[in-house]
Amino acid sequence: MNENKRVGYLGPEGTFSHEAVLKVIDENTNIIPYPNILNIFESLANNEIDEAVVPIENSTEGSVVITLDALTFFNLKIKAELELPIKHNLLVQKGKTIDDIQVICSHQQAIAQCRNYIHNLKKPVHTMPSTANAARYVSELSTAAVIGNKILAKKYDLEILDYNIQDYSNNVTRFIIIGKDDQKQPSGNDKTSIILSLEGDKPGGLYEILGIFVNENINLTKIESRPSKQGMGKYIFFIDLEGHQKEPSIKKALDAIESKVSMFKILGSYKTITVEGELK
Amino acid sequence: MNENKRVGYLGPEGTFSHEAVLKVIDENTNIIPYPNILNIFESLANNEIDEAVVPIENSTEGSVVITLDALTFFNLKIKAELELPIKHNLLVQKGKTIDDIQVICSHQQAIAQCRNYIHNLKKPVHTMPSTANAARYVSELSTAAVIGNKILAKKYDLEILDYNIQDYSNNVTRFIIIGKDDQKQPSGNDKTSIILSLEGDKPGGLYEILGIFVNENINLTKIESRPSKQGMGKYIFFIDLEGHQKEPSIKKALDAIESKVSMFKILGSYKTITVEGELK
Repeated sequence: MNENKRVGYLGPEGTFSHEAVLKVIDENTNIIPYPNILNIFESLANNEIDEAVVPIENSTEGSVVITLDALTFFNLKIKAELELPIKHNLLVQKGKTIDDIQVICSHQQAIAQCRNYIHNLKKPVHTMPSTANAARYVSELSTAAVIGNKILAKKYDLEILDYNIQDYSNNVTRFIIIGKDDQKQPSGNDKTSIILSLEGDKPGGLYEILGIFVNENINLTKIESRPSKQGMGKYIFFIDLEGHQKEPSIKKALDAIESKVSMFKILGSYKTITVEGELK
Repeated sequence: MNENKRVGYLGPEGTFSHEAVLKVIDENTNIIPYPNILNIFESLANNEIDEAVVPIENSTEGSVVITLDALTFFNLKIKAELELPIKHNLLVQKGKTIDDIQVICSHQQAIAQCRNYIHNLKKPVHTMPSTANAARYVSELSTAAVIGNKILAKKYDLEILDYNIQDYSNNVTRFIIIGKDDQKQPSGNDKTSIILSLEGDKPGGLYEILGIFVNENINLTKIESRPSKQGMGKYIFFIDLEGHQKEPSIKKALDAIESKVSMFKILGSYKTITVEGELK
């Protein structure tokens, strides 16, 4: 008898991460909510779960920096990625109007994605550990409203006062599925993520790295810097590129880059899962 | 009679931003606390204040993304920058011990800069609008502790339970002073900040831009991407470089770049203010 696969996500039930994990699992999977992203990485590193789904980037607010830092620290791999359209709503206790509301509660990413909307409401904001925690709080406090997904209305017996309140209509969050291994063989339609830091942060160092990709005709889909934590002005670069690390041109470029930098790590080669595709 | 200069900062009194603003003003300045960074930019754009001091980057946690987004949106200039060493402490009501504490409160940046420390405490975290708000809350709740600077102990009658709890000892926050104009003339020791977005996000576009800087021997001190809000995969690049926009080689490079990109803005040329230097 096969044991069920265990997949961790940022809980509790009702978060956008919960929505994301439901898109990528089958019936032989147990999903396990975690209170924060660091706990998920630790649990995966300790073999308490087999995989995890974590947010890495939002099209409005940018990177989820805890995820980037954890990818640097832990020796785990990206197995797949998933882009989930994110629609925010304002939910209150049934029968309440906006005039009854004295405080807006939500997770910090949701707040950031609705910053202009909240600014116009001119009501104070309360940051909570998750959108679902905020909804539970609102279910007990008639003067509070929560920003989150529609699922929360049913789960916490709330009413949706305002729909699609995110500042930018094409608001998308990119989730990654992490595990002990990435996708071993090229599918012909893969991405690869790497991180590196430059020797002594010399000027022109990044230019030289980008030149290696240009020479091999490799498309970069993202380049981002994060502090190396070693003091102001020292950075780690996160680069996403099109292709699998086993394709000859990619392998050649990555080998050349590895010889030129002070730190280099391949986070994984993986496919993009299309939502509302073959996976439920 | 001259009117006093009005300088806005992220309040209330006792925050690290308050510490920063005190380093750069003289006796003819009125300092005005604001509840959030967006309010500061709006107030400056509406001439309600003359200048403002806002955090832009921390060596552990990275950019303050609200500041980057506001610099993109508003037509304001960077006049100067200041790097402030940030030391965090754990403060509680007098006589309390760590065993009395059930929740840790602070601003989200302070929490992020002490993430490992908090993780080891294994106590829940409550995000507040500022370190000073959190201290006020702790002064009324004997089971809560606040993470913040030493000033809070005196101001809110608290006791420091643990010193220097930031995860990385060389923790520094970079603040910028913004106003209607930047520093008009080169001092010989300036930095210039620009933002740009690439035509159709074509591959090799960033490589071409970096090549212009390399050809003119211009050192870049920072390059960072932010979402353009136009959908996943579209970015605005923030670049800091050494030199003043009126120096011939910088002017030549910036003119060349402006002709190659779809959006280009100079955020200002400015000097770095050394803390504990001539300014009090």
